[in-house]
Amino acid sequence: MAAEIICVGTEILLGDIVNSNSQYLAREFAKLGITHYFQSVVGDNISRIHSLLEIAVQRGTKILVFTGGLGPTPDDLTTEAIATYFKTPLVERPEIITDITTKFAQRGRVMTPNNRKQALLPEGADILPNPTGTAPGLIWQPIAGLTIFTFPGVPGEMKRMWQDTAVPYLKAQGYGQIVIHSEMMRFRGIGESSLAAKVDHLFELTNPTVAPYASKGEVKLRVAARAESVEAAKKLMDPVVAEIKAIAGLDYFGSDGASLPQVIGDFLRTRQETLAVAESCTGGGLGALITSVSGSSDYFLGGITAYANAVKINLLGVNSADLQNQGAVSETVAQQMALGVKQAIGSDWGIGITGIAGPKSDDSAKPVGLVCVAWADPQNQVFSHTYRYGTDRDRELIRYLSACDALDGLRRYFKSDKP
Amino acid sequence: MAAEIICVGTEILLGDIVNSNSQYLAREFAKLGITHYFQSVVGDNISRIHSLLEIAVQRGTKILVFTGGLGPTPDDLTTEAIATYFKTPLVERPEIITDITTKFAQRGRVMTPNNRKQALLPEGADILPNPTGTAPGLIWQPIAGLTIFTFPGVPGEMKRMWQDTAVPYLKAQGYGQIVIHSEMMRFRGIGESSLAAKVDHLFELTNPTVAPYASKGEVKLRVAARAESVEAAKKLMDPVVAEIKAIAGLDYFGSDGASLPQVIGDFLRTRQETLAVAESCTGGGLGALITSVSGSSDYFLGGITAYANAVKINLLGVNSADLQNQGAVSETVAQQMALGVKQAIGSDWGIGITGIAGPKSDDSAKPVGLVCVAWADPQNQVFSHTYRYGTDRDRELIRYLSACDALDGLRRYFKSDKP
Repeated sequence: MAAEIICVGTEILLGDIVNSNSQYLAREFAKLGITHYFQSVVGDNISRIHSLLEIAVQRGTKILVFTGGLGPTPDDLTTEAIATYFKTPLVERPEIITDITTKFAQRGRVMTPNNRKQALLPEGADILPNPTGTAPGLIWQPIAGLTIFTFPGVPGEMKRMWQDTAVPYLKAQGYGQIVIHSEMMRFRGIGESSLAAKVDHLFELTNPTVAPYASKGEVKLRVAARAESVEAAKKLMDPVVAEIKAIAGLDYFGSDGASLPQVIGDFLRTRQETLAVAESCTGGGLGALITSVSGSSDYFLGGITAYANAVKINLLGVNSADLQNQGAVSETVAQQMALGVKQAIGSDWGIGITGIAGPKSDDSAKPVGLVCVAWADPQNQVFSHTYRYGTDRDRELIRYLSACDALDGLRRYFKSDKP
Repeated sequence: MAAEIICVGTEILLGDIVNSNSQYLAREFAKLGITHYFQSVVGDNISRIHSLLEIAVQRGTKILVFTGGLGPTPDDLTTEAIATYFKTPLVERPEIITDITTKFAQRGRVMTPNNRKQALLPEGADILPNPTGTAPGLIWQPIAGLTIFTFPGVPGEMKRMWQDTAVPYLKAQGYGQIVIHSEMMRFRGIGESSLAAKVDHLFELTNPTVAPYASKGEVKLRVAARAESVEAAKKLMDPVVAEIKAIAGLDYFGSDGASLPQVIGDFLRTRQETLAVAESCTGGGLGALITSVSGSSDYFLGGITAYANAVKINLLGVNSADLQNQGAVSETVAQQMALGVKQAIGSDWGIGITGIAGPKSDDSAKPVGLVCVAWADPQNQVFSHTYRYGTDRDRELIRYLSACDALDGLRRYFKSDKP
């Protein structure tokens, strides 16, 4: 057994704050190659903290990290709970009193008596200094094989103390010699279950490991390896990553920070080509997604959002008879939008997008979730596709998925190297 | 003992995602008057899930809520772990197979075999339907006095299932007889600390309570009361809500679901007037925000995203000498954009927005975070404002705040009833 995190604070149990400290510590554990299997949250209550200490000791936990409950108020009970569980007296540390007094003086204040509480640590525990706040933590081995760390709940103080003191301490104990390196592979155009079925045999691997993640607008596979260096970990991962790429083909679009708008931006910049978009149901969301990438002005010229049919006709040159006969949500109209915006704005590429985001359909018989996208290339060749996102998805998700697929279609166009 | 939350997912232990589901459920427990003392996180591992089940049973937990681990892949183990702990066989439910098949068909896909796994529930458990995804949950009393709920880890699916099925179920069991009713009052144009200073005396109240919340793009005050009915709670809240409205004046824009785009949409619909937008730095995000409201086609005609200066000149009629002399980020250019988009699209109102979203500035000496917004009214009167969001905020936040202020300026225009 390895590490375990216990976050103390009634405010977490009431849902007043989100527990971001656990996430931070979890990542830090991974970096140091420290495995951990359990995280807990408990209120400011001595007997309930005791019950979690008992569970951790029973489990054989080696590193037990507490956050929260170190402050000066009566409901800050973490240190007291730890000391009483191990039947160890609390002792006032004069160096902590000095430190707190100095900090108050620097802020032009006098230390109030309740702050003395923060100077009480179990006999035998080391001080874990807090450079930015008044509540220090502790590092203590109350029994053989178990090291306890305590940190304040304030994320900024906790992180600084972790980096300044806990990380060097753990490295001196031999942790961090094994690193866990990972790559998050990203896919669009295939569902989680379909991708999982295709790479099923890889889920059995133990080093590297492969695990699927569902995510809004894409599917992810995390490939991770443990090794003595990042380079060695990559070497273990390389053949698996290559195999997944071969299996997924065009559905794989990038890893880690390579988002869809980033990927299509890189293509356009390399090709020295420009893009403009004509949007209906997304209302500007496709342009917003493209321009979420810093430097997108290198290739994105602009767009026309044609929410009303009159705007489709007047600014994009959509044929009013086609609008009438095929409806605003049709591949014909999407194609004319893509070509129209190219012409209006003078870009190399144009995308047209029109659909029914819901929750209600338009006056036609077409279902909510039906979205038509068209792409026009520099030679004014145009192709298009109709997506069906289903009637059970909400408006914002349908709009977001549409924008992702509009970019993904362009990416596939680039990858297949059509004229 | 009361409720307990167990979130299952190795991705939480690795720090890949923050555990927001616990916070949501914690708040929901509070609303129903359900106390809970413990939250846990565990990886996708049957024996470790068993150990947490054992602890929960030992503690005498009455309501045990699981999130995560219900999907189709081999590492989704929550249901199997619960069934085996209580030595109950898993049974395939044909109604779940039907539901999943239907959902796949709506998206034009065929169900892969691994999805059948999601139809397996312990004998005797009720289905907790999932309206938006493929993995249903369960409601089950495996032993006297203990009710287990399971939800997928995807927050949107979990919340919908909680509201649609779990809340009515728990109310039928007698929870929630004392209701906590609350109103979230929403403000724009005043900072959290300034608003807090103005309503400081209200934070001492005990029933109703008043608490400030920071939120992206707005400030919120939550007014909440406990009473035996919603009506009785509202009666307690009414004078406090009225007092806050009087103090905040125009900075208060609505409560609960009344978002800025909703509020300006209601104004425009009532006035029977239309709107178009000209965007630069927001790249379409302002239009996307306006059209996030269902039915926005009643008043929103469309927009022109002029990311490149040539588009500002050619489609919006911005004067190239002004662009040269004042720079693209100037009130003059914003004004010409607002007037230009009105004319191009034929709307009653026009908004123009141009700024530096960062992380780098343009070639001028203007700082990141500088955004100019202009509003043109039906009589082509135009007014404008320059916002400074500061150089320390990130690109996405600056773009979002700009779009909020563009809407807020329009709202203030309507409220002050300018010509």
